Amino acid sequence: MQAGSGIVTLITDFGWRDAYVGAMKGVLCSIMKEVRIVDITHEVTPQGIQEAAYILGAAYPWFPPGTVHLVVVDPGVGTRRRPLAGAADGQFFVGPDNSVLSAPLGRPGATAHLIEEIDFALPERSDTFHGRDVFAPVAAHLASGVPIERFGPRVADFEVCLLPTARLEAGRLIGQVVRIDRFGNAITNVPRERLRELGPGPYEVKAGACRCGELRRTFQDVAPGAIVALIGGDGAVDIAVNQGSAAATLGLEPGQPVEVRRAQGGDE
Amino acid sequence: MQAGSGIVTLITDFGWRDAYVGAMKGVLCSIMKEVRIVDITHEVTPQGIQEAAYILGAAYPWFPPGTVHLVVVDPGVGTRRRPLAGAADGQFFVGPDNSVLSAPLGRPGATAHLIEEIDFALPERSDTFHGRDVFAPVAAHLASGVPIERFGPRVADFEVCLLPTARLEAGRLIGQVVRIDRFGNAITNVPRERLRELGPGPYEVKAGACRCGELRRTFQDVAPGAIVALIGGDGAVDIAVNQGSAAATLGLEPGQPVEVRRAQGGDE
Amino acid sequence: MQAGSGIVTLITDFGWRDAYVGAMKGVLCSIMKEVRIVDITHEVTPQGIQEAAYILGAAYPWFPPGTVHLVVVDPGVGTRRRPLAGAADGQFFVGPDNSVLSAPLGRPGATAHLIEEIDFALPERSDTFHGRDVFAPVAAHLASGVPIERFGPRVADFEVCLLPTARLEAGRLIGQVVRIDRFGNAITNVPRERLRELGPGPYEVKAGACRCGELRRTFQDVAPGAIVALIGGDGAVDIAVNQGSAAATLGLEPGQPVEVRRAQGGDE
Repeated sequence: MQAGSGIVTLITDFGWRDAYVGAMKGVLCSIMKEVRIVDITHEVTPQGIQEAAYILGAAYPWFPPGTVHLVVVDPGVGTRRRPLAGAADGQFFVGPDNSVLSAPLGRPGATAHLIEEIDFALPERSDTFHGRDVFAPVAAHLASGVPIERFGPRVADFEVCLLPTARLEAGRLIGQVVRIDRFGNAITNVPRERLRELGPGPYEVKAGACRCGELRRTFQDVAPGAIVALIGGDGAVDIAVNQGSAAATLGLEPGQPVEVRRAQGGDE
Repeated sequence: MQAGSGIVTLITDFGWRDAYVGAMKGVLCSIMKEVRIVDITHEVTPQGIQEAAYILGAAYPWFPPGTVHLVVVDPGVGTRRRPLAGAADGQFFVGPDNSVLSAPLGRPGATAHLIEEIDFALPERSDTFHGRDVFAPVAAHLASGVPIERFGPRVADFEVCLLPTARLEAGRLIGQVVRIDRFGNAITNVPRERLRELGPGPYEVKAGACRCGELRRTFQDVAPGAIVALIGGDGAVDIAVNQGSAAATLGLEPGQPVEVRRAQGGDE
Repeated sequence: MQAGSGIVTLITDFGWRDAYVGAMKGVLCSIMKEVRIVDITHEVTPQGIQEAAYILGAAYPWFPPGTVHLVVVDPGVGTRRRPLAGAADGQFFVGPDNSVLSAPLGRPGATAHLIEEIDFALPERSDTFHGRDVFAPVAAHLASGVPIERFGPRVADFEVCLLPTARLEAGRLIGQVVRIDRFGNAITNVPRERLRELGPGPYEVKAGACRCGELRRTFQDVAPGAIVALIGGDGAVDIAVNQGSAAATLGLEPGQPVEVRRAQGGDE
């Protein structure tokens, strides 16, 4: 396994208003003087485990080997939910065993260790802020090269809760909206790679009752204000509105059904 | 006194929308090429001196010796309010003399120097943005090892405005809500350390008219949606709602009275 | 031209909620292990090209030579709008050719190169996220010292869209509000340097129908809640309210006319 690269990223539901993010960063700097802290987001909805899991899955693959991703969305802090340090794809992941680390830990070859070796945590640990007292110290030690085996025994029964995947049915990929982004784009669980199951394109997209037309290349393939289906930044089919918000225009929200099929150029 | 560690943290009321944070960071990088900038928060309420003072107090103790904390909430910019560089607990603090640095400067052994040596400020100084023109340059010089004595004469009459402390009265600790955090937790000014003044636990907590029950260990010691009093991340009694917002549920806000006493297992 | 300093700043309209900022940062770290990432803002209004251009113009001059500014507000992503790498004032600028880089590229001596050399982009490029797939890689290579000429041919016909400038008319500088900042200050396009065109001060300021009085030095030159005109942090005439919001109090918004003339101490 790759040694730590000195980079620690942060994904939390702490927001930017309070001192919690600062306290965690202080602990990181105290343990590893040369740590390079990278804010991914602190704006996860409070207790939004699935949301944080999605963001981790979309962001971590772009980081270099040895990066440590510290993910703290932890409604079960202080209970028997277990603290984990995981490794996958050459990178490290630290957070609670509540499925927030599902994206990397669901990958082939992923491993996870319980954090039991309290020598690596702060000497005084609260019951309500393990992000600062347990996870940040372990992340800093990982980033500075402590082998992951040192933190505790390997476990195989960690929680992984993968997003629902689209299903192929009667020549259609049936999926759903999994996220609305800042722009109001509706991101679906139909990844580009699965389109080939439908045969060669072009493809047509429906979201709920809305026909979104053919899958296009980019936003400006339609007029401003018009609906466009395309492959979004996260690599899946998105429903968007050029220079507008698809979520607001079409009332889209997570869970709504989406369907992709080969374009047929006629009525259904 | 510890030399600068190269770390400069930022606490401001500038928000993330404007160019002000960027300009300050540019000055820091220009003066100290290797500076490591750590964002704590820029979301302090405009002119929220007490709020920034609280966040500094909750965050700074977690940072390593030599860290420089740059705190810019400065409604009196350009007036005779004085610019300060302080030292406490092995760390440095730069900001206006308006009590925003109260937490460290109120500590035993804290010292403060006026910033008078304008050689350390930018050559052209505005009257409305000392964060960029005075405080950031001084922070960068401190972080790169300039001794604090170089910035100006030591002063003793700086402003310190400590939060009201809880009082012990008839076997009860009478305090108040001092802050609502992002989760809607109501943070009080009853720190864990003072509970021993009540004798051994368990303890009971009241906030305004609401009986919050016994002081518990963590959020999930009660059912989702239920009220729970516990020791929060900042080390004081918090009133929370498991997976919900105590502020919204109970209408709590800063200033409301809070009372902690030994649990008596009966009517009052 | 200065070699890269290892600093890459970020200005985007991605917000902090999604994984887009994280993905870009991951690419930066993957290409240049020692990159120092500086967040300026991710809160530009979606598709707010002029807004991002303003923020870049106000922030970049404070950074040291060799800094790379990565600006991604890119509604035309995937179309024939061109990707640019520019140089001005000893610093570098990477973003789409949609006028978002106007402030530096409008400067004397500024140069710009098309990004054509796809060896510097990611091997797989999406049609919807060039911030990650094209601009971040180029920024990282620039920051690590790749000469700007290597990215593609020099071009002269890039888009520059400068803010409207104030005009001198009958002894008055006639300008407008160009931005409302977080505090509700109305920033105008009347820079301090142009006041000398009016002759010696004091000066008087009007914004729409509101007489804002003499141009003062700082906020507390007036009582709390009172209107004050002053030179703001960005170096231009601002209309503010001491400890309040001028935008809310006076209903100011971008585009509204502003007038500065010599104070005459009497009726108009």
